[in-house]
Amino acid sequence: MKKIIECVPNFSEGRDPGRIDKIVEPFRGKTDVKLLNYQHDENHNRMVVTVIGEPDALKEAIISAIGAAIDVIDLMKHEGQHPRMGAVDVVPFIPIKNVTMDEAIEFSKEVAENVSRKYNLPVFLYEKSATRPERQNLADIRKGQFEGMDEKLRLPEWKPDFGPSKVHPTAGATAIGARMPLIAFNLNLDTNNLEVADSIAKKVRHIGGGLRYCKAIGVNLKDQGIVQVSMNMTDFTKTSLYTAFELIRIEARRFGASIVGSEIIGLVPLEALVDTAIYYLGMENFSMNQVLEYRIME
Amino acid sequence: MKKIIECVPNFSEGRDPGRIDKIVEPFRGKTDVKLLNYQHDENHNRMVVTVIGEPDALKEAIISAIGAAIDVIDLMKHEGQHPRMGAVDVVPFIPIKNVTMDEAIEFSKEVAENVSRKYNLPVFLYEKSATRPERQNLADIRKGQFEGMDEKLRLPEWKPDFGPSKVHPTAGATAIGARMPLIAFNLNLDTNNLEVADSIAKKVRHIGGGLRYCKAIGVNLKDQGIVQVSMNMTDFTKTSLYTAFELIRIEARRFGASIVGSEIIGLVPLEALVDTAIYYLGMENFSMNQVLEYRIME
Repeated sequence: MKKIIECVPNFSEGRDPGRIDKIVEPFRGKTDVKLLNYQHDENHNRMVVTVIGEPDALKEAIISAIGAAIDVIDLMKHEGQHPRMGAVDVVPFIPIKNVTMDEAIEFSKEVAENVSRKYNLPVFLYEKSATRPERQNLADIRKGQFEGMDEKLRLPEWKPDFGPSKVHPTAGATAIGARMPLIAFNLNLDTNNLEVADSIAKKVRHIGGGLRYCKAIGVNLKDQGIVQVSMNMTDFTKTSLYTAFELIRIEARRFGASIVGSEIIGLVPLEALVDTAIYYLGMENFSMNQVLEYRIME
Repeated sequence: MKKIIECVPNFSEGRDPGRIDKIVEPFRGKTDVKLLNYQHDENHNRMVVTVIGEPDALKEAIISAIGAAIDVIDLMKHEGQHPRMGAVDVVPFIPIKNVTMDEAIEFSKEVAENVSRKYNLPVFLYEKSATRPERQNLADIRKGQFEGMDEKLRLPEWKPDFGPSKVHPTAGATAIGARMPLIAFNLNLDTNNLEVADSIAKKVRHIGGGLRYCKAIGVNLKDQGIVQVSMNMTDFTKTSLYTAFELIRIEARRFGASIVGSEIIGLVPLEALVDTAIYYLGMENFSMNQVLEYRIME
């Protein structure tokens, strides 16, 4: 594959194996499309798919998968813990190889236009594709969820970017856009005091005055008797993993706490780990072209 | 490419562009063979090629390149700073993807047998392919160099593994074998005292009582006014980059010196850098399958 875009669509179905299979099917057995992973959760009643592909082949596959999800999911009957506004809740596209962010934005708009027309679906452009600042953040668009969406869509300021100004009766509305790769990075602390994790999370995250591309919350890991600072690193090229790690280490001192471990959930771009190795080993003039596997991929 | 072997042959020609081109030519424009790099040095009068390939295609290409080197190089007329015993001095094979070390050893023996027969060349198996312990180390095999090789080859203990027991009149002798990827890792210190770098190198390297898979020497970087501990990490899966880094940091304290920078020369396997990131971020249960590019390569 010369050009690679990653897509991580979230579908509001995490329970019925038959339906799950129908949604995932368009990603299987295609030239230039590779299904990397799909995870579904009973409690959330939601599925996250990770797929990569050449732009043209990926576009065809995601349009089919969105059609399949609209066919099999009825949000009128949907319940689950995770907030959602659509059968296809959100469709992010991430530029991976030989694709610029501008090209990924353009690509996301083409997909959005196509599915809004084909399935009569209201679509919001979000993140880097957003047409106004208040639509960058998915949480702002999704506020009110499926149940409140019909009323919201009639407001002039919430007119969808594509498709009708009313919800799809069974599929709701969908957000589509381009974004940087997101890294789910969690740090465990040697305390069972959730307030400690919460305080640190507030200090390190962007909205609290912390790092620009870091979202964070405190989480209680009851079965392990410890707490965790759970982060989404939204642009590792600007806010490094090691920066968040070192800042949390420093902040934890205030509470006499220490980092006792960490984890990355799901996939991580090679460059984020290389960036970390370069920092700790103090490497000068290191180039990604020195990574053997990177050269093999060329 | 389903299976990948890397080859880093060293040729005793670093000056004549026409000859260099003839030696490198068999690696160009082949399906399933990829020339990653070639560097030649006037002072050393030597060239190091880095190439990867599927076993069958790589075998054909390296046999041709060895033939080309024997055609164009005459060691009777060769001078250069680097020790050498052959026109094709050494040919290491490194298992990279879906190839075991045992398979790489078998592969190296097939190439050795073939070129010894085809070019009437004495060949020693070295490193993991060595047939006796005193032939593991290239320096031991090469001792005496081209000029002393004819006498050495007549000794029963230095009978070559393949080919005649006398030097090739213009191409000398060659060492061929399988080995782990080698990482050239250098750490700079904030002192201009070469004795400090030498003392640290002696302490950290295997023969001095240090790390099992680490070779090290002190080097004077005169133009920068500092010294360097220059290392070859010969099995990063067992002796990690960060282990050498931390050990040198600790040892440097004895002299009131600090590490002020580092560099990796040439290529490095992805896993060596990921291993380093995992250590410093304290990551638990991280799998190489979480590296996006690793999945794309599958």
